[in-house]
Amino acid sequence: MFKGLMFCILTLSSLSVFSQAEDSLFIRKLADEILTSGKAYENLRVLTKNVGGRLSGSPQMYKAEDWGINALKDAGADKTWKQECQVTHWVRGAREEAYLIQDGKKKLPFKALALGNSVGTGKNGVKAPVILINSFDELELKKDEIKGKIVFYNYKFNPLFIKTNQSYGDAGKYRGSGPSRAAKYGAVAVLVRSMTHSTDNHAHTGSLSYNDSMPKIPAAAVGLKDADKLAAMLEKGTYSVYLRTNAMMYPDTLGHNVIGELTGSEFPNEYITIGGHLDSWDVAEGAHDDGTGCVHSIEVLRALKAVGYKPRRTIRIVLFANEENGLKGGTAYAAEAKKNNEKHYFALESDAGGFTPRSFGFSGSPEQLAKIRNYLPLLLPYGVYMINDGGGGADIGPLRQALNTPVAGFEPDSQRYFDIHHAENDVFENVNKRELELGAINMAALIYLVDKYGL
Amino acid sequence: MFKGLMFCILTLSSLSVFSQAEDSLFIRKLADEILTSGKAYENLRVLTKNVGGRLSGSPQMYKAEDWGINALKDAGADKTWKQECQVTHWVRGAREEAYLIQDGKKKLPFKALALGNSVGTGKNGVKAPVILINSFDELELKKDEIKGKIVFYNYKFNPLFIKTNQSYGDAGKYRGSGPSRAAKYGAVAVLVRSMTHSTDNHAHTGSLSYNDSMPKIPAAAVGLKDADKLAAMLEKGTYSVYLRTNAMMYPDTLGHNVIGELTGSEFPNEYITIGGHLDSWDVAEGAHDDGTGCVHSIEVLRALKAVGYKPRRTIRIVLFANEENGLKGGTAYAAEAKKNNEKHYFALESDAGGFTPRSFGFSGSPEQLAKIRNYLPLLLPYGVYMINDGGGGADIGPLRQALNTPVAGFEPDSQRYFDIHHAENDVFENVNKRELELGAINMAALIYLVDKYGL
Repeated sequence: MFKGLMFCILTLSSLSVFSQAEDSLFIRKLADEILTSGKAYENLRVLTKNVGGRLSGSPQMYKAEDWGINALKDAGADKTWKQECQVTHWVRGAREEAYLIQDGKKKLPFKALALGNSVGTGKNGVKAPVILINSFDELELKKDEIKGKIVFYNYKFNPLFIKTNQSYGDAGKYRGSGPSRAAKYGAVAVLVRSMTHSTDNHAHTGSLSYNDSMPKIPAAAVGLKDADKLAAMLEKGTYSVYLRTNAMMYPDTLGHNVIGELTGSEFPNEYITIGGHLDSWDVAEGAHDDGTGCVHSIEVLRALKAVGYKPRRTIRIVLFANEENGLKGGTAYAAEAKKNNEKHYFALESDAGGFTPRSFGFSGSPEQLAKIRNYLPLLLPYGVYMINDGGGGADIGPLRQALNTPVAGFEPDSQRYFDIHHAENDVFENVNKRELELGAINMAALIYLVDKYGL
Repeated sequence: MFKGLMFCILTLSSLSVFSQAEDSLFIRKLADEILTSGKAYENLRVLTKNVGGRLSGSPQMYKAEDWGINALKDAGADKTWKQECQVTHWVRGAREEAYLIQDGKKKLPFKALALGNSVGTGKNGVKAPVILINSFDELELKKDEIKGKIVFYNYKFNPLFIKTNQSYGDAGKYRGSGPSRAAKYGAVAVLVRSMTHSTDNHAHTGSLSYNDSMPKIPAAAVGLKDADKLAAMLEKGTYSVYLRTNAMMYPDTLGHNVIGELTGSEFPNEYITIGGHLDSWDVAEGAHDDGTGCVHSIEVLRALKAVGYKPRRTIRIVLFANEENGLKGGTAYAAEAKKNNEKHYFALESDAGGFTPRSFGFSGSPEQLAKIRNYLPLLLPYGVYMINDGGGGADIGPLRQALNTPVAGFEPDSQRYFDIHHAENDVFENVNKRELELGAINMAALIYLVDKYGL
């Protein structure tokens, strides 16, 4: 129970007393720069309001790439470029239609949002009896009753996890593998309770992952109020549901990771990557997911340059393509790094929203973890009080796998993240300027310390 | 610089290894109760939506008192009562009117919100040249130019403080003493830039404090967008402003602290007070200020009772009257405690919003501070990682003064607080259910530990 605080017994072996004071002053300068002249919030406004949702393969994806190049140039990057990759090209099509049928004819409509990468129902939709399934255990128990039905997974986002990403890890499998598991027993479509603690009725989309040995069936998310209503009715009676989704999967298409660099003064061929993903779901503005990660990363470069810091290693900002439904940007980035035999010293991702800072998660050797924890007292005044063992980000995962690069993930407070995650309300207005800026401060400070003192 | 983390070097002298595990399990039980069966959010909904704003002396104040008694009874209080006190009775009257006059006739309206306890302008309003004053230093320099004018204090909420309450402490004097300082030099009214980092244009009210030896002049707050617009114009030209406020101060009237208790099993005559203030400004629903403090406090009682905890000392929940513009509830509570020679063991206030938990602030002896810091590892899983030296709450300040009671204040994340503080947007919709519940968990855990192991 007390392990979590052990990091606090600080030896600070790698920092002299002099440098502690100097670093503290330097980080204060970074903070002042970001709090008074920061561009993260305005960059985010332009990305969310002028570009908007930017699903891979959409026209907005290309517009976002141009936005990224310009924002990186404006921030002071020494060079910028687009790195080609093939990205998933899934299109939602016309908005979904869904209703429950009462007394054989009365239509009770509810909001359904097709899951990413799902197949469409065809223009006539699917009409079938619906079966309430609260867990995979229940699915197995009732496997003989599934055939020809629409399975409605009503597994609840567990409120007992204090960090909501743990609830997401717990519930996410119903969205990811639920459709194929239901198809195995003959289901014709799937509805999934949204993965959220929210108090509203927004449906939350996200990718599914079909098992190629099963038939691909349509699948859609349902908001919590509708899910509760459907569940209450299905506990008392039997009903059919009509569902029409209009999704289409096209062949992969051309996309790009958007990259900007500050060239290193001592080790220009050693890279520190800082990134978020540029793509988002189509139904909102992708503000917290992951506009904030993009503007955090750009702000790190801008602030370091603005205060006159000359990085020892090359600082590379990467706005990754296609995280949401393919991870093909992150995969291509790691493949190219490996092919070119690049030395990647460290990578940091922000893909957990632009909320108030709490911690970083780190994946590396125990010695590296101990060293990075030494930096905590310098972050504490800005809100980061812990560096967890384990963490990183989806887009930098392939880099860690390919090159064993130490990686970290920025971990802001998680309570509000799943209120907006993959839903219509992931908009600029739900991002707080100060919280966003504090994230950039902690990221910039960590990058400065790792660049200066190493890992 | 490293002082802040010293609390982490834990001796835990007062807790045996066995009790650590037992306490950890007990606090987990409290957390589970609050996260699955919590009433704080629904209580807040009823208070904000069915009662609404509840300024001292208003009909809603009385309605809120009845709400409080019922909520405490529902939570399982052994007894409840209302403690009488005389409260400030200031009334805003009809909404304010304000405009700048261009070219001698063109009216450029802006939103002005009378400061609490201010005098009204009279029905004809005040029309006078307006002078831009950026600081008290500038006021002194220009003291000969003030007479007959409306002073517009445009002192900025300092973005460099990481904790926004420090910015509030810094800027608050312009609202509190600015009107009388301007009146000293003959000003006829005052406008004050709102104390906020917000990105919108809401005006933020709050109390002023007249110096009785100066004339009482009307005073109103201005939103940031309007303030910036006025300042930009006044830097280039001279203008008059028309201001009409309709406020009236009536004689003090009857109000009540609303109190509910769980009687102590070992020391029924020793009190642990937990509270927030029931009154709010009139312009919004008083959701974060301080509806959340009230429902936090009630939830502590409810959860302790629901999990079957028998407190050693009497747990007393107090919903204080008249914090905003008089502090007469807190003052009366302490006076009565002193008169009755009550033993007040500890007091905890929540009056900084219902945001995600970060810390408690504590005022007591160094030994008590050391002891309470021993409890931190048990709070850390729920988000509190620091107990600051110094802190408490306005309403329990008089108790500390009168009886030297050790006091603490719950300190949630401060970034969003001044976005809504004393403004129209302090509404239920801006409170997050999970963040609210985590506050109640940390408060309940601290109360349990202090009751069980002492201070």
